[in-house]
Amino acid sequence: MPYKAAMPTTYAVIMAGGSGTRFWPVSRSASPKQLTRIIGETTMIQATVARLQPLIPAERVLIITTAQLAVETRRQLPMLKPEQVIAEPVGRDTAACVALAGLIVERLSPGATMIMLPADQIIQPADSFQAALAAGVAVAQHGRLVTYGIVPRFPATGYGYLQLGEAHPAEGGIRVSRVARFVEKPDLERATQYLAAGNFRWNSGIFTWRTDVVLRELGVHCGWLTEALKPVAAAYGTPRFDAVLAEVYLPLKKVSIDYALMEHAKDVAAVEGDFAWDDVGSWDALPAHLPADASGTISRGETVAVGCSDCLLVSEPGAPLVAAANCHGLTIVATKDAVLVVPRGEGQAVKGIVDELGKRGRKELL
Amino acid sequence: MPYKAAMPTTYAVIMAGGSGTRFWPVSRSASPKQLTRIIGETTMIQATVARLQPLIPAERVLIITTAQLAVETRRQLPMLKPEQVIAEPVGRDTAACVALAGLIVERLSPGATMIMLPADQIIQPADSFQAALAAGVAVAQHGRLVTYGIVPRFPATGYGYLQLGEAHPAEGGIRVSRVARFVEKPDLERATQYLAAGNFRWNSGIFTWRTDVVLRELGVHCGWLTEALKPVAAAYGTPRFDAVLAEVYLPLKKVSIDYALMEHAKDVAAVEGDFAWDDVGSWDALPAHLPADASGTISRGETVAVGCSDCLLVSEPGAPLVAAANCHGLTIVATKDAVLVVPRGEGQAVKGIVDELGKRGRKELL
Repeated sequence: MPYKAAMPTTYAVIMAGGSGTRFWPVSRSASPKQLTRIIGETTMIQATVARLQPLIPAERVLIITTAQLAVETRRQLPMLKPEQVIAEPVGRDTAACVALAGLIVERLSPGATMIMLPADQIIQPADSFQAALAAGVAVAQHGRLVTYGIVPRFPATGYGYLQLGEAHPAEGGIRVSRVARFVEKPDLERATQYLAAGNFRWNSGIFTWRTDVVLRELGVHCGWLTEALKPVAAAYGTPRFDAVLAEVYLPLKKVSIDYALMEHAKDVAAVEGDFAWDDVGSWDALPAHLPADASGTISRGETVAVGCSDCLLVSEPGAPLVAAANCHGLTIVATKDAVLVVPRGEGQAVKGIVDELGKRGRKELL
Repeated sequence: MPYKAAMPTTYAVIMAGGSGTRFWPVSRSASPKQLTRIIGETTMIQATVARLQPLIPAERVLIITTAQLAVETRRQLPMLKPEQVIAEPVGRDTAACVALAGLIVERLSPGATMIMLPADQIIQPADSFQAALAAGVAVAQHGRLVTYGIVPRFPATGYGYLQLGEAHPAEGGIRVSRVARFVEKPDLERATQYLAAGNFRWNSGIFTWRTDVVLRELGVHCGWLTEALKPVAAAYGTPRFDAVLAEVYLPLKKVSIDYALMEHAKDVAAVEGDFAWDDVGSWDALPAHLPADASGTISRGETVAVGCSDCLLVSEPGAPLVAAANCHGLTIVATKDAVLVVPRGEGQAVKGIVDELGKRGRKELL
């Protein structure tokens, strides 16, 4: 890996506080998507850390999660020291994560570069991703705020887009452009236009910047946030950390990094991400990333499919065997305490089940 | 119940050795349909005994089951003495059951009447059934072999039929006819003709006769069978019973009572059964007998249905909750170790799953 030798000191900050129930019954409030083995043999957060390894050693990984999830997160990542998993007492959106992580990284290694990324994305293959990250780290050395724009494969309405502006010099053979505009999730008509136009990319929510640069920019656009968080960074690694964090965090206003900074910053670059990327918003996202049998049916765990086609059958460890006969286009997921059946393409309907269980007070199932 | 006072001494003999897996995953080889709560709050065999109670007290009930099922059968029917549950070491078809039960009943109460019936039928309402049985008992006093012909509700291809001949006098207001012919399971065209013709009835597999009459008739048509079984009946109620039964039963030829006797006997009468009757051959039979919600969905156990229609959702005690969203016309059944999903109307496809599990050597699931 030639880029590795040349890499400046780089930290990865993984945002892992998500609490979705879109993968119910596997994902629960106490074990959301990033902590589950929805795909692969490891959990999504384990896969995220592993995917960074050739570039970022474990000692330069920070995880930002919630107090509720911190114990399980530390358990899943035993190579991290406890303080590398930061437990937010309450969620204060992504700008606070960036500012806090930036201040901590700057304290640990002044002038270091940091990569911010979510814990719950499917990215394949890892080497294309690592090459894009290395290119982003190089671009960030010029003082640019770097995002990664995924080449769209279909007119997705579930993602935001980046409209590309003029080209920057390529980095390690990877295309780099100025970001002309951040675009909200479009309707299908617009998404189709974006795909045809050729200069739109999916907004991956992955960023790279030098900490001194991002802190300076945050100081310009959002100075109250970095000021508030300085005492927290100062307490990092001490027994007072959680207490100081709680004191500062509770009164903070919630702002996203897109709104606080990226949409206003002058010099945002997009590094091209030409790899399979998915933020897997529901069970429907999985089949694209898992091998199917000749009938189009995908199985995880112990299952039996007789006369079925295009089904996704999941039996989690400890769950009953899942058997389907003559079923077509169904998602069937069994855990030890709940079974889900929903047609493929209608995975969002899981929300209705979760809402109903909430009404019934069945918190242990949520 | 006016018929009760006038009833001659009558025994009920319940054939309960069935071992089907058509209700997999609820029915298993160790707990077939008759021993499960597929419908109602009691098992089918418990419901069968309860349904007879106003006519036949528990002390005049005999159960014929297999050695494998006898322990669980006795457990479910604690009001019966152990010897009232006869455990066949191997199945030798229905003629052997009739001959054995007839010899035992004749020994216990010479000249008594006996009702033979399966343990795994849905019959509603109980009082119409009891009235038909009482009529059958009365008809049997004239020396006739009585069957019960169910008024067909649709052109069923899964049942045998009785073609009715000339009318006998009605009994207690219930129609009685000579049986002109026993008819095998027809194809749909023939079944439709039978329904239109008006003189065909579903063959319920329920019989009533005086024991002296049925033993005399068996002696004529199948003398080797009654001869062979006499020593078994003589040992009934003694510690030698199971040993004698095994010794006699093992070499016996398998013959059905229809083939051995009913199709040859001269004086077979059909008592009209004008009640809901179902031998519930698969999960598809259940919805007709269970209350549905406004969407046509039927639930047993803890289930959640959101945006569903015409589904059958079953969560057995100890099984995961069953949740379905936007599903239509599906049967979903969860037990603690297996989940079944199959479209309604295709319940026979369960056989393919059972076969596959057999191939995999998963005996504990069968």
